[in-house]
Amino acid sequence: MEGYAKGLEGVIAGESTICQINGEKGQLLYRGYPIEQLAKHVSFEDTTYLLLYGHLPNQQDSALFRAKMRNARELGPQILDMISHFPEASHPMELLQSVIAYLSAYVEHRIHHGPTCNCRETLHQVAQLPSVIAAYHRIRNGLRYIPPQKSLSHGANFLYMLRGELPTEEEGKIMDSALVMHAEHAFNASTFTARVVASSQSTCYSSISAAIGSLYGSLHGGANERVMDMVDEIGTKENVVPWLEAALAKNQKVMGMGHRVYKAKDPRSNLMEEYLLYLSEQSGDMRYYDILKELELQTRKRMEEKGKPIYPNVDFFSGAVYRLLGIPTKLFTPIFAMSRVSGWLAHVLEQRMDNRLYRPRALYTGPEPRDLPSDLP
Amino acid sequence: MEGYAKGLEGVIAGESTICQINGEKGQLLYRGYPIEQLAKHVSFEDTTYLLLYGHLPNQQDSALFRAKMRNARELGPQILDMISHFPEASHPMELLQSVIAYLSAYVEHRIHHGPTCNCRETLHQVAQLPSVIAAYHRIRNGLRYIPPQKSLSHGANFLYMLRGELPTEEEGKIMDSALVMHAEHAFNASTFTARVVASSQSTCYSSISAAIGSLYGSLHGGANERVMDMVDEIGTKENVVPWLEAALAKNQKVMGMGHRVYKAKDPRSNLMEEYLLYLSEQSGDMRYYDILKELELQTRKRMEEKGKPIYPNVDFFSGAVYRLLGIPTKLFTPIFAMSRVSGWLAHVLEQRMDNRLYRPRALYTGPEPRDLPSDLP
Repeated sequence: MEGYAKGLEGVIAGESTICQINGEKGQLLYRGYPIEQLAKHVSFEDTTYLLLYGHLPNQQDSALFRAKMRNARELGPQILDMISHFPEASHPMELLQSVIAYLSAYVEHRIHHGPTCNCRETLHQVAQLPSVIAAYHRIRNGLRYIPPQKSLSHGANFLYMLRGELPTEEEGKIMDSALVMHAEHAFNASTFTARVVASSQSTCYSSISAAIGSLYGSLHGGANERVMDMVDEIGTKENVVPWLEAALAKNQKVMGMGHRVYKAKDPRSNLMEEYLLYLSEQSGDMRYYDILKELELQTRKRMEEKGKPIYPNVDFFSGAVYRLLGIPTKLFTPIFAMSRVSGWLAHVLEQRMDNRLYRPRALYTGPEPRDLPSDLP
Repeated sequence: MEGYAKGLEGVIAGESTICQINGEKGQLLYRGYPIEQLAKHVSFEDTTYLLLYGHLPNQQDSALFRAKMRNARELGPQILDMISHFPEASHPMELLQSVIAYLSAYVEHRIHHGPTCNCRETLHQVAQLPSVIAAYHRIRNGLRYIPPQKSLSHGANFLYMLRGELPTEEEGKIMDSALVMHAEHAFNASTFTARVVASSQSTCYSSISAAIGSLYGSLHGGANERVMDMVDEIGTKENVVPWLEAALAKNQKVMGMGHRVYKAKDPRSNLMEEYLLYLSEQSGDMRYYDILKELELQTRKRMEEKGKPIYPNVDFFSGAVYRLLGIPTKLFTPIFAMSRVSGWLAHVLEQRMDNRLYRPRALYTGPEPRDLPSDLP
């Protein structure tokens, strides 16, 4: 039988100029810029520009792009209706996937059967995902829909639409920075999905909707949800050691520690930890911070003793940051989508620049040719 | 620079027991059975069973499966609302992608975070796609929605819901058989999309919705639309030769002739031609048949003279068959989705049986690491 790489592991599926990850050095770079610098000094809107255009905007382009994106935030009545009638027990990722595909129908002058696209002009997908998530949360909880506010940054406006009150300046900055940190990560499963769909020259909406479907899967999104489930289970700082001993005895993984790619420290986790400390001190609620830091310390100590150094990844602290910003756990994966959409769009545009339809081979291992039986139903 | 196969051409991306294509011999087999036999003797419902379960149903299983699928045809009020409010100028594929993702939210007991799934039980996606397409067409044209009828086959019921009157028995059989012929075709771009999304353990609805997005692209679906555009352009049998001479002089392709995979005759095209002849004779309108047969003859003659034998593929005749069944051109790609959904689902289930997340590598060709400029906007 012919050999092949399951899950296309290690197989090069295309070229890209968008993102570089150096796991050994703990580097993540968007268009060459280190993620720590971007997350600290560049807004999500400018980061989106960088991803979509390949270079940082000048002052004029930045203002123009920001205005376009802020003008595109408001939801139409039919989308609000879809949100209102979305079945109670369902997951918001199903709603996002559906809404983005539906939104495609509202875009004028889109060129969906050619190599170019006006999504850098309309920016609906990037602009409206936060609005959909916030509206979903509020309507689901019997609260009124809060229209967007153009004076606010992407991150701050999301918190405002979600909570119904203005966030502090620092909260807005932290949210925006968290979005920057999750905006891009090379050919992960959802980004690859977006490129595969784009390769048939489908619309960017179809491609992004499909990527959301991929991110919904438990093997992709949801890591920070599981960290918080673990934190809730641990409950107190004092319970960290007994919990950890029991977990390690059962060969259970500590969620959010270690990373498939980063062998050194995930460059995003330092900043996330800083945000968690700030928000914990501001709120006077140190519980999450104390549990996580103790868990990090104790896990690293035990793993170093075994000669297996391990570090927290971005998901280790991000769930607690989101909770302290007033975001319920069910929205963590939708928030991942609302940041990653910028990277997805960049990849869709890049795919179109030098496209070839993704059409790999299957290795057939089924029954030999045979005739139908005579006793058909 | 490292080499790689663009579009993963020739790269094996997984094993499959569902479909075998032998292009040299002109064979297409579902689970080992030749497509000609299936399309002639097996209903779309039993073909779907074959694809999903790996074997043909016995009489009892066939009846049970048929009943389940027919019970699942009716659309809920929220889906009808999405259809009613779908923007005028948009493509129905955008609607289908959106509706399937939305439908995910209505399914109880679905196991979307594990290897199994109850989609073989609920059968919503296979059952409701025809209803959505028919409802879209009627509502868009100011006609009332026709509820499904359980006594009718999958194909006949679609024609009934679309046209508002019972099709003849032969029309129903032809429609059902056309669906069988398009139900599966190994790792094409949309099926690969479905498997990539399923590989993150997302729901089958997310996976199928994504596959619809892929099929929407002009490099994938839409070939029979383009055949009919060409037929309309040619207009009369007498104009075939002048049109063809002009087209060949411009190196323009004759749509629907030749196939990437089939070097011998596409096994589906004979049967499709038979259906076209029958419907043409029944309706007394031989125009499409006459143009297409003349075009086939003249094209083959010219290509054989050049030593490049060429044959009509399934798309060459299918568009004309659909038109004579009263189906508008805009619905051709949606009908492709409504048949291929059975194959997609079979691949999603197969992917889950022995899953590995699809996560290939990218070859980074972007800028070297650099610091942010000092003059940030």
